[in-house]
Amino acid sequence: MEGDSISRKKASFWKALFTPQSVALVGASKDAKKWGFNLLFNIVKGGYPGRIYPINPKESEILGFKAYPSIVQVPEPVDTAILVVPSSDMPKIIQECGRNGTKVGVVITAGFGEVDRKGKNVEEEMVALARSLGMRLVGPNCQGIVSTWNSSLYAHMPPQFPPTGPLGVVSQSGNLATSLIEAGRQLGIGFSRIISSGNEADLQTPDFLEFLTEDPKTEVILSYLEGLKDGRKFFQTARKVSAKKPFLMVKAGQTEAGVKAAFSHTGALAGSAGLFSGLCRQRGIIQAETIEEMVDMAAALAAQPLPRGRRVGVVTLGGGWGVLAADFCSQAGLIVEALNPRMIRELDGVLPPWWNRMNPVDMVTGYRKGDLLTSMELFLKSNRFDGVLLLGLGWRAWRGGFLKSWSVTAEDGMEAAGQDWIEEEGRIFADLQELGCKYDKPILLASDVIQHTPGYEMAVRQRRVAAYSSLPRAVRAYRGLVERYEFLKRVRGK
Amino acid sequence: MEGDSISRKKASFWKALFTPQSVALVGASKDAKKWGFNLLFNIVKGGYPGRIYPINPKESEILGFKAYPSIVQVPEPVDTAILVVPSSDMPKIIQECGRNGTKVGVVITAGFGEVDRKGKNVEEEMVALARSLGMRLVGPNCQGIVSTWNSSLYAHMPPQFPPTGPLGVVSQSGNLATSLIEAGRQLGIGFSRIISSGNEADLQTPDFLEFLTEDPKTEVILSYLEGLKDGRKFFQTARKVSAKKPFLMVKAGQTEAGVKAAFSHTGALAGSAGLFSGLCRQRGIIQAETIEEMVDMAAALAAQPLPRGRRVGVVTLGGGWGVLAADFCSQAGLIVEALNPRMIRELDGVLPPWWNRMNPVDMVTGYRKGDLLTSMELFLKSNRFDGVLLLGLGWRAWRGGFLKSWSVTAEDGMEAAGQDWIEEEGRIFADLQELGCKYDKPILLASDVIQHTPGYEMAVRQRRVAAYSSLPRAVRAYRGLVERYEFLKRVRGK
Repeated sequence: MEGDSISRKKASFWKALFTPQSVALVGASKDAKKWGFNLLFNIVKGGYPGRIYPINPKESEILGFKAYPSIVQVPEPVDTAILVVPSSDMPKIIQECGRNGTKVGVVITAGFGEVDRKGKNVEEEMVALARSLGMRLVGPNCQGIVSTWNSSLYAHMPPQFPPTGPLGVVSQSGNLATSLIEAGRQLGIGFSRIISSGNEADLQTPDFLEFLTEDPKTEVILSYLEGLKDGRKFFQTARKVSAKKPFLMVKAGQTEAGVKAAFSHTGALAGSAGLFSGLCRQRGIIQAETIEEMVDMAAALAAQPLPRGRRVGVVTLGGGWGVLAADFCSQAGLIVEALNPRMIRELDGVLPPWWNRMNPVDMVTGYRKGDLLTSMELFLKSNRFDGVLLLGLGWRAWRGGFLKSWSVTAEDGMEAAGQDWIEEEGRIFADLQELGCKYDKPILLASDVIQHTPGYEMAVRQRRVAAYSSLPRAVRAYRGLVERYEFLKRVRGK
Repeated sequence: MEGDSISRKKASFWKALFTPQSVALVGASKDAKKWGFNLLFNIVKGGYPGRIYPINPKESEILGFKAYPSIVQVPEPVDTAILVVPSSDMPKIIQECGRNGTKVGVVITAGFGEVDRKGKNVEEEMVALARSLGMRLVGPNCQGIVSTWNSSLYAHMPPQFPPTGPLGVVSQSGNLATSLIEAGRQLGIGFSRIISSGNEADLQTPDFLEFLTEDPKTEVILSYLEGLKDGRKFFQTARKVSAKKPFLMVKAGQTEAGVKAAFSHTGALAGSAGLFSGLCRQRGIIQAETIEEMVDMAAALAAQPLPRGRRVGVVTLGGGWGVLAADFCSQAGLIVEALNPRMIRELDGVLPPWWNRMNPVDMVTGYRKGDLLTSMELFLKSNRFDGVLLLGLGWRAWRGGFLKSWSVTAEDGMEAAGQDWIEEEGRIFADLQELGCKYDKPILLASDVIQHTPGYEMAVRQRRVAAYSSLPRAVRAYRGLVERYEFLKRVRGK
C-alpha cells in the first residue's frame, strides 16, 4: 500500500517535470544577458505549449507574458518552477513555491554545497524545506532540463533545441550535457529527455535513471557521473536499468587530479576507478572514455541489431582503411575472422582477379554495386561472422558532386558521370539497409564523407543506419554493441 | 665528388617532381568516370601553371589540351609523367618515357607486387628499366602527389585542393592521404607536399623523408607507414629528420590482423609493434594512433611554442570540462600541477568569491574578460607551469549569434546583448594570442563551438592558435608538443 502511494507520488512529480501543464520562471529578466532571460526565451522559442509564468517583482510583462511579483500570486499551482534567484534567497522562494502548490523546482543557481560548508548548509535547509512542502528539487548548480515529448520543454541554459529521439540523458555537469547535445546534433540523432542534475541535493542520478528506464520514449540511457552520494543505491538501480535498456556512462574522476576537480565542481566524492569499472561491467553499464564516444555508441545501439559475437567482417573501398580497421578492431577486442575457402571461391566469382582474398575485403577503388553488395551479403549470411563494417562509402558520391558542379558543357560528360555516381551510391546505401534488416546483423559505416551519400540524413533520422566520420569512431561504437550483447547473454543466459 | 653528383641528381629529380615545368598524363581519357580524366582534370582545376600533355592515341584533344599518341611525340622532355595505363603496358610506356627524356614517373596503376609474384616481377622489371633510363618512379599503386608551392600541382586522384601550408605528408596509402587532407581541411591547416608512395618499388619513404626534411616549405612531417623494405635505412633517416623537424607517424600493422592486411595492401612486411615503437621513441618519431590525432598534433606543432615540461594549467569556462580535463591530462602523462598560495591569493583578488581555488580553474559561467585573461596570465608567467589549456571559448559568441538572429525589436535588447558577447569573445581571443607570444608558452583551446569565436579562421590560417573541437583531441595534441620537447631536450641536452 505504502509502496503504491510512493509510486503514485513519483509518477505525479515525473509528469509535472517532464510534461508540465504550467511552468514558472522565478527570477525572470528582461536583460538579454541574464540567464533569467535566456531560460525563459529558450522555453518560449522551444515551443512549450503549456502556460508560462515569469516571476519578477519589478516587471509587469516579459517576452509578452504577464509577469507576477511572486509565485504566490500565480493563479494556479504550477507543475514546474525554474529557479534562478541568488542562493541566499532560495529558502524564501521555496517557501513561496510551497504556498503556490508547486510540484517540482529546478534550481539553476550555483553557490551551494560545491563552494563551502555554508553553502552546503543552505542546500540542506532548502531540501528539507522543499520536502516538508511536498515538493521535489532538481539541482542546484544545474543547467535545467529538456523534455522533447510530448511537451516540447527546453528549460535549460544553452540555445539548443535537439529534436525528439531515442536518447535519454542524466548529467551531473551542465557543460557536458551541452557537449552531448552538440555531439548528437552532429550525428543527426535526437533526445527524449535531458536532465542536468547538478549537485543532486534532492533528486539524484538513481532517481532519474529509474524514470528513464520506465520512460517509453527513451531507448538508450546516457550518463555523465562525477560521484555518488549513495553507491549501493546506484548500483542496485543500475542492475534494473541495464536489464531493460542499454546504459552508457562517462565517469569523471578516474585519476587523482580528476577526483579533486570533481569534488570542487559538484561536491562529488569519486571512488576508486578500478573498483568502479568492475562494478559497471558486472551491472551492464557500458563505460565510454569521452562524451563523443558515448554518443557514437548510443547511436549504434539505437539503430542497429546486436551482433551475436565478436567476429566482424570488414569491407573496404580503400586498402589503407582496411589495414587500420584490422588493427583497431583487434585492439578493441573484436575478431577479424578469416574467410573460409568457400567464401573466397564465391568472391572469386564476383570480384576482379586482383582482389586481396582476405578479411578485410579490399574492393580497391574500382568497385561496382554488385561486387560490393555481394561481398557484404556473404559476410551477413555466413555464420562465421556476427556483423560488418563498411569503410569508404560516400567518397564516390562526394566526387560525383564535384564533377557535376564543375561541368562546363554537356559534352564533357562530367554532369552525367557525377550524377551516375551519386545515384549508384544512393542505391547501394538503400540496398545495404535492406540487407541489414534481412539478416538481422549490424552494419556500421565509416567514411570521412559519409554524409554525402544520398539518403543519408533521412536514414539516420529514421535510425536505419549507424554511420561515423572516422574509422576509430565506428570501431568503438561497434564495441559498444558487443558489450551490450555480452551483458545480456550473461544475465539472460542466451 | 661522387656524393656531390648524387646530391645534384637528387635535387634535379625532386625539382622535376615537385616543381615541374611540364607534366604528361599517360592514359589520359575523355571519359569523366575514368581516373585518366579525373587526374588530368584535377591538375587543370588545381591551377598548374606549367605545360600539360595528355597522352592518348585515340584522341586529338582532351580538356582543351592537344593530345599526343605517345609521350615520344611530346616536343620536350617532360619533368613528370603521371602514368595510368594498365600494368601490363607499363614496361612499354616506361621505354617511351625514356625516349622522351622524362625525369620522374608517378605510377598510379595498381596490380603489381601487392597482388602476386607475377605482379612483383613486372614491378621489378619496370624499376630496373626506369633506372637504366635515368628515370625515378613514385608508386606503383598510389594516388599521386600534391605540391602546393611554388607549383600548384594537384596530380592526385581525389578532387581535393588543400591550400599551401606547413604540413608535408608521405603516405603508403592513398585513402589515408585523402583522409588526412580532409582532417586538415576541417582544422583549417594547409599542406606543402603530399606524396602517396604506394608500393614504393623505386622511391621509398626514407627518400621522401629526406626531401621533406630539406624542403623549406615543410615544417612538420606526417607519415602513414604499413611496412619497411629497409628498416635500417629508415631509422637512420628518421634520426636526421627528427633532429630538424617534428616527425609524426601512424603505423599500421600493430596487430596480427593488421600485419596480414598490410601485406595484402601494399606488400609491406610489418614487424613487431613493440620493438618498432621503442625505436620510434628513441629516434624522436611521435606516434599517433589515428590520422585525426596525427593532424591534430601537427597543427599544434605548427602553431605553438613547445612547453618546457609536462606541467599544465587548465582554465575552464565550465566545471565538467575541467574535471574531464584533469582526468585526460593525467592519463596522457601531463601534470595538473597545484596552484601555490600566492597564485590563489592573486586569483582571489579577481575571481568571484565562489571560485574553486584549484587547477583546473573553473570560471563558472559568469566569467568576465579581465578574470579570464588574468587567470591565463597567472599560469603563463608562473614558473610552476609550462603551458595552458583553455576550455569552452566560443560558447558565448555562439550564444550571441543566436540572440542576434532571434531578435525581434531593438527593445528586446537581444541584438545588442548578442553583439556584445560576440565582440567580447573576439577581444579575449585576440588578447590570448598576444599573451601566448609574450610568454612563449603554448596555449591550446578546446570547445565544441570554438569556430564561432570571431577571428578564428584567420588566426588558424596564420597559425597563431591551436584549437580543437573536443577536449580529448586538445589534450592529445598537447601531449605531442611535450613529446617533441622531451626528444629535443634529450638529444640537444637542453
